[in-house]
Amino acid sequence: MTQVDHTRMANAIRGLAMDAVEKAKSGHPGLPMGAADMATVLFTQFLKFDAAATDWPDRDRFVLSAGHGSMLLYSLLYLTGNAAMTLDQLKQFRQLGSLTPGHPENFHTKGIETTTGPLGQGISTAVGMALAEKMLAAEFGKKIVDHHTYVLASDGDLMEGVSQEAIAMAGHWKLNKMIVLYDDNGISIDGPTSISDSVDQVKRFKACGWAAEKIDGQDQAAISAAITRAQKSNKPTLIACRTTIGYGAPHKAGTAKAHGEALGADELKAAKENLGISLEPFSVPDDVLKAWRAAGSRGATARQEWEARLGELGSRKRAEFERRLRHERPASLAKAVKAFKKELLEKPLVAATRKSSEAVIEVIAAAMPMEFLAGSADLTGSNNNKAKSATAFSAKTPKGRFIHYGIREHGMAAAMNGIFLHGGFAPNGATFLVFTDYARPAMRLAALMGAGVVYVMTHDSIGLGEDGPTHQPVEHLSALRAIPNMRVFRPCDSVETAECWELALNRIDGPTVLTLTRQNLPQLRTSVNENPCQYGAYELVAAQGEAKATLFASGSEVEIAVAAQKQLAERGIPSRVVSVPSLELLLAQPEAKRAAIIGNAPVKVAIEAAVRWGWDAVIGQDGEFIGMHSFGASAPAKDLYKHFGITAEAAVNAVLKRVS
Amino acid sequence: MTQVDHTRMANAIRGLAMDAVEKAKSGHPGLPMGAADMATVLFTQFLKFDAAATDWPDRDRFVLSAGHGSMLLYSLLYLTGNAAMTLDQLKQFRQLGSLTPGHPENFHTKGIETTTGPLGQGISTAVGMALAEKMLAAEFGKKIVDHHTYVLASDGDLMEGVSQEAIAMAGHWKLNKMIVLYDDNGISIDGPTSISDSVDQVKRFKACGWAAEKIDGQDQAAISAAITRAQKSNKPTLIACRTTIGYGAPHKAGTAKAHGEALGADELKAAKENLGISLEPFSVPDDVLKAWRAAGSRGATARQEWEARLGELGSRKRAEFERRLRHERPASLAKAVKAFKKELLEKPLVAATRKSSEAVIEVIAAAMPMEFLAGSADLTGSNNNKAKSATAFSAKTPKGRFIHYGIREHGMAAAMNGIFLHGGFAPNGATFLVFTDYARPAMRLAALMGAGVVYVMTHDSIGLGEDGPTHQPVEHLSALRAIPNMRVFRPCDSVETAECWELALNRIDGPTVLTLTRQNLPQLRTSVNENPCQYGAYELVAAQGEAKATLFASGSEVEIAVAAQKQLAERGIPSRVVSVPSLELLLAQPEAKRAAIIGNAPVKVAIEAAVRWGWDAVIGQDGEFIGMHSFGASAPAKDLYKHFGITAEAAVNAVLKRVS
Repeated sequence: MTQVDHTRMANAIRGLAMDAVEKAKSGHPGLPMGAADMATVLFTQFLKFDAAATDWPDRDRFVLSAGHGSMLLYSLLYLTGNAAMTLDQLKQFRQLGSLTPGHPENFHTKGIETTTGPLGQGISTAVGMALAEKMLAAEFGKKIVDHHTYVLASDGDLMEGVSQEAIAMAGHWKLNKMIVLYDDNGISIDGPTSISDSVDQVKRFKACGWAAEKIDGQDQAAISAAITRAQKSNKPTLIACRTTIGYGAPHKAGTAKAHGEALGADELKAAKENLGISLEPFSVPDDVLKAWRAAGSRGATARQEWEARLGELGSRKRAEFERRLRHERPASLAKAVKAFKKELLEKPLVAATRKSSEAVIEVIAAAMPMEFLAGSADLTGSNNNKAKSATAFSAKTPKGRFIHYGIREHGMAAAMNGIFLHGGFAPNGATFLVFTDYARPAMRLAALMGAGVVYVMTHDSIGLGEDGPTHQPVEHLSALRAIPNMRVFRPCDSVETAECWELALNRIDGPTVLTLTRQNLPQLRTSVNENPCQYGAYELVAAQGEAKATLFASGSEVEIAVAAQKQLAERGIPSRVVSVPSLELLLAQPEAKRAAIIGNAPVKVAIEAAVRWGWDAVIGQDGEFIGMHSFGASAPAKDLYKHFGITAEAAVNAVLKRVS
Repeated sequence: MTQVDHTRMANAIRGLAMDAVEKAKSGHPGLPMGAADMATVLFTQFLKFDAAATDWPDRDRFVLSAGHGSMLLYSLLYLTGNAAMTLDQLKQFRQLGSLTPGHPENFHTKGIETTTGPLGQGISTAVGMALAEKMLAAEFGKKIVDHHTYVLASDGDLMEGVSQEAIAMAGHWKLNKMIVLYDDNGISIDGPTSISDSVDQVKRFKACGWAAEKIDGQDQAAISAAITRAQKSNKPTLIACRTTIGYGAPHKAGTAKAHGEALGADELKAAKENLGISLEPFSVPDDVLKAWRAAGSRGATARQEWEARLGELGSRKRAEFERRLRHERPASLAKAVKAFKKELLEKPLVAATRKSSEAVIEVIAAAMPMEFLAGSADLTGSNNNKAKSATAFSAKTPKGRFIHYGIREHGMAAAMNGIFLHGGFAPNGATFLVFTDYARPAMRLAALMGAGVVYVMTHDSIGLGEDGPTHQPVEHLSALRAIPNMRVFRPCDSVETAECWELALNRIDGPTVLTLTRQNLPQLRTSVNENPCQYGAYELVAAQGEAKATLFASGSEVEIAVAAQKQLAERGIPSRVVSVPSLELLLAQPEAKRAAIIGNAPVKVAIEAAVRWGWDAVIGQDGEFIGMHSFGASAPAKDLYKHFGITAEAAVNAVLKRVS
C-alpha cells in the first residue's frame, strides 16, 4: 500500500459517485459507496492492468455486473488515469453523448469490458471471458495468456436465473481464475432483500463447484486476504462481502433510499463530513489522485514484459494471435467456402439446412480449427453444429472446441458474448429457434454491443413437427428481426446456407441468427458466382414474360414458392420467385436496390411458416400472406403444412384470386 | 397397495409409453420408463384426485415439468380412467388433433394441469400453484382448500435458470406443500449429464430453503417413505430420485439413446420380455387396469366429502369461491371503472400512465380486494402497481395481496401462470418493459395456454431517460405484438389507462401487457361513454374538413400527434389523430371496422418511440414513420426525444413533405 491510506482512496470513489449522481439528479450512489473498499483493494493490489493501454490482451478483466453502480467504474477509470475519462466526463454523468451513460457501455467507453445493467448479464458474460482465457492459454501458453476475470456482482445478479446457469458452467469447467466479489449489502430496490429472498449464497455456490466464503466487505485486510486465497483456489471463487449500501451516508446508509437516487444536498454534505471528504464537488486531494494514478500505471512494466514475450513468440504464431484478437478471418475461409459452393453445383446436397450447415461447418472448421468455437445447449445431435474434428471442451481438455453448455440457452448466449469480447474466438451456439426466447436478454446485449456471435437455431418452424406448439417457433423470426443490429438469416438450400454462414462469420460488428430446418429441402440454386444473400433477398426464379406476381419466401418455403411459380407458368401466368434469406437486410438496402429486388408485379405474395408481422413492408397491406396465424400443433410436418394451408396450391390460389 | 403388485402397475406405464412412441416413430420413451415407479407410488398412494372430476378444485396438482415425457402423463390419464383419454388416443400419439400431442397441453387435454415442454417452466409454474393454494387456504379455510402440488422434474428443468428463481421463491415462502420428484437419471440428450454439469442439487435446494434428500427412484418403498416425510416438512421438498432412463430396455437403458426416440422393434421386444410385459401393443392386463382404475376413483369419496363441506360454507362465501375459480369479475368492477372515468372528466389526471395505473388500481383493488393479486420484480415504487390497501404476502402473512418477487422476472411470469391456472386470483406482475425479454418463455406459454394474466410493464420507451439503452425498450412492443394471442396495450392517458386495465382484467382467455410511461402525460380524452380501446384504435381528434393526413400514435406519442395535428390545422391542413392503444387488436378487427378506423387520408404517419416493425400494416410501405431506428441512449427523456427526432415538428414536416 502506498503512503496514502486505503480509506482516503476509497473515499475518493465515494465522493465522486455522490457528486455525479447529485449533479445528474439521477443514478445509484449506494453501490459505489458500499463497494469502494472492495474496488480499492482490487484495483490497487490485485488487478493487472495498465490505464494507458486498455486493450492490452493479457489484462485482467473487471466486470461490474451490477451495472447500475456505473459511477464506481467511471470513478475508477478517472482515478487510475484513463485518458478519455476526464473529470468533465464525470460531471456529464447520464447526459447525452457523454462517456458516462447510466449503465456502462463497452462499445462507447474505453476501459469498460462489457455492457451491464440488465442484472445477471455481467457475471454470465464473465464466465465466457474466463472460459476464453482458459482456452487461449492452453493454446498460446501462459506466457502470453494468463489473467484473471473479476466480477463485482449484486444481490440482483444472483437472484436472476441466468446466474445459476453461469455459475453451474463455471464450476463444472473449474474456471479457477474467475473471482466474484459479491456486494452482499442486503438491500434491493424494494427494501431489505429479506422480504424476497432467503438463499444462502455461499452454500449455493459451493453446491455448484465453487469455493465460497463470507467476509466483511468494508475491511480491506479481509478483502485482500480473501482475494489472495481465491487466486490460489482450483475452483472459481465467490467472496460474499458484507457491505453497507451508501456507506458513510448518515441517514440513508443501509437502506433502499441509498440505492437508486441522489442523496440530496443535506445527506450528501453530511456523508462527506462523516467520511472526511472535501465538500467541493468532484474534488480529489492531490496525494490521493497521485496514489490512484500510481495504481493505474503500476501494470505498465508487466505489460512491457508481456510485449517482449509476445515478440519472442515467433512471427507466425504472433501474427495468428493478433489476427485472432482482431476477429479477422483467415484468408483461407473465403476460398474454402467458394470451393464448397462450386462442389454443391456439381453434386447437389438435398438435405435439411441443419445438415447443410453441418457440411459447411466441416469446411469452416478446417479453415479455422482453433477459433471456430461451437457449442450447443444439449441438442448437439439435432443442431448439427459440431465439426467431426472438434473435441469436447472440458476442464481437462481446454483445447476442445465444442462446448456442451447443458440445458442453458441463456447462459450459453451470455457466455458467447464474453468469449467474443475477450477475443480469440468466433463463437457460435445452438438450440431450437423457439428457445431464443430463453436467451433473448443476452442476444439483445450482443446486438447492442455489436458482438459478432452466431446463433445456430435449428427446427425453425412448424416443420419441426411432432414436438408441437411449445417447440414450434411462429413469432420468433419476427421478434428477432425487430431487434436493432440483429441479423437473421433463413437460408432455403445448401448453397444459401453456405453463403449465410460466410456472411455471419464475417459480421464482426453484430450478431447473426442462422435459422435452419429440421426437414429436408431440395437444392434450388443453380449459380454460385455471387453471394446474393448479402442483399437480404434476390430473384431466384425469373418470370417468363412480364411478371403478374412475385412470390417472396424464405427458408423451407422457397421450395413451395418455386412449385407455385411452376404451376402458375403452366397456367400461363408469369411470376417470379424472390428468395428472402434476410427480410430486415432487404429492407435495409438502398431504396433503388430494394425496389429492384421487390419489383413491381401487381400481385405480391409472401410465403413463410411464421406470422405475417413485418412482411407488410415488402408485400404491402394488400399483399397476400401464406403463413401462420396462430400457434402450431403437434403432428408430422407434412400434415401441419397442409393443415395450416402453407402449400403451393394456396399460393397459386392467392395469385389466381387477384389476377382474375 | 392392491393385490396387483406395484411393479406390474408401473410396467403398464412402461409398455404404453414404449408402444405409443414406437407407433408414432417419435417421442421420448426413456422418462416414462424410468419414472414409472415414482408415478405409480404417487398416483396410487398419495395423489388426491378423482379421474371422473378433473376440475375438482381441491385436487392435488401434478405437474410433469419434464413435458417431453408426455406419454407418462397420457398413460396415467388412461390407466386411472380419464374418460376422454382412450386407448385410441394413445395410439394417436403426436398426430394431428389427438388428445396426445408431443408435449402436454392443458388447454387441449383435460386432466393436464399446465403446458410443459420448454424446460424449467413446469416447476416454476407449480410454484405459482402452490402459492395460490396457500393464499386461498388462508382465505377460505383448510376445509375447502388443502392440497399438495407435486412436480416431476428432469435434469433439464433444474439446469434452466428459471428453476433457480422458482426454488428461491418457494423456499422463501415456505411452500411446504410443494413436493418435487426429481428424475435424477444422469442422462440428457447429449449424453451423461456429467459432460455439462456437476451441481449437487440436494445441496443447492437446501441452500434455497428446501428440504432435500436423495433416494433410489426405482424403489417403491423408498419413494413412499420420502413422500411421507415430505408431506410432514415445513419446507418445500426435493426428492432426488436416482433412476435409470429407459428402465428395462436391455441395451438402451441408462443411455441417451433411450431419451428421445423410439426404441425400435427389437429393443422394444427385448424390453417387454425383460419386464414381463405382453408383446401385444397397447395391451394392459385386466387386473392391472382394474387396479389402476381403482386408484383413479379412490378419491371419489374425498371429493364428495369436500362437496359437502363446500355446501356448508354458506351460500355467499360459496358463490364467491366459485366465481373466483371461474375467473369471473365481480359486477362492481365495471361500475367502479365507469365512475372513475367520469371523475377523470371532471378532474383530469395529468400524470405518467404508471401513476394513472396506480390510481386505477386503487379502484380495482377496492372492487376485488382479495383476488387482485399484484406483484413486482423488485421495482414496486417504480411500477406503481401496489394498491395502498395491499399488504405484502409472506409465509407468515398469506392474506397479503402484494408479492415481492425479487429480481426474478421470469420466475414471476411463470408463477403468475400457475396462480391463474390454479384459480382464485387475477394475477398481475410488474417490471420495466425492456425486461419482458427475461420473462418471455413464460409469457409465450401464457399466450399459448390462454392464461388471463396481466403484465404491468412500465418505463415503456426512451422516455425512461437516463438509464440508457440497456433499459430502454425499442423492439419490445413489436416483439410482444408478434406473439399469437398476446394483447399489448399502450394507453395514452389516464382514461385509456383505465379502459385498458378493464379490458385486461376481463380478458380471461389470454395474457395482456400494459405498457406504461415513466414520464408525465396530459389527459387527452374528453368523452368516456364508450371504451374505444376495445377496437385497438379509434379517432381521437377529427379533422376539420377532409383529412389530408392521419396521424397514428400510441401511448406517450399521442400527445405529439395531437400537437402536430394542431400545428397542421394552423397551416390550413386538415388532419386527424388516431390513438392506437393496441396495434394488433386494430389489425384483428373485421375489415370494414379496421378500414373505417384507419381511414383513407392520402398521407399516413405513425408516431411511436419504438421500431417501425409491424406498422406498415397500417401506414403502408410508403407511410411516414416517426420513431426509433436504433437502440436508445442515456440522457434525460426530453433530450432523447429531440435527439431521435420524435417530435411534433418531425410529424408536421413529414406531412408537409407529402402534401406539397
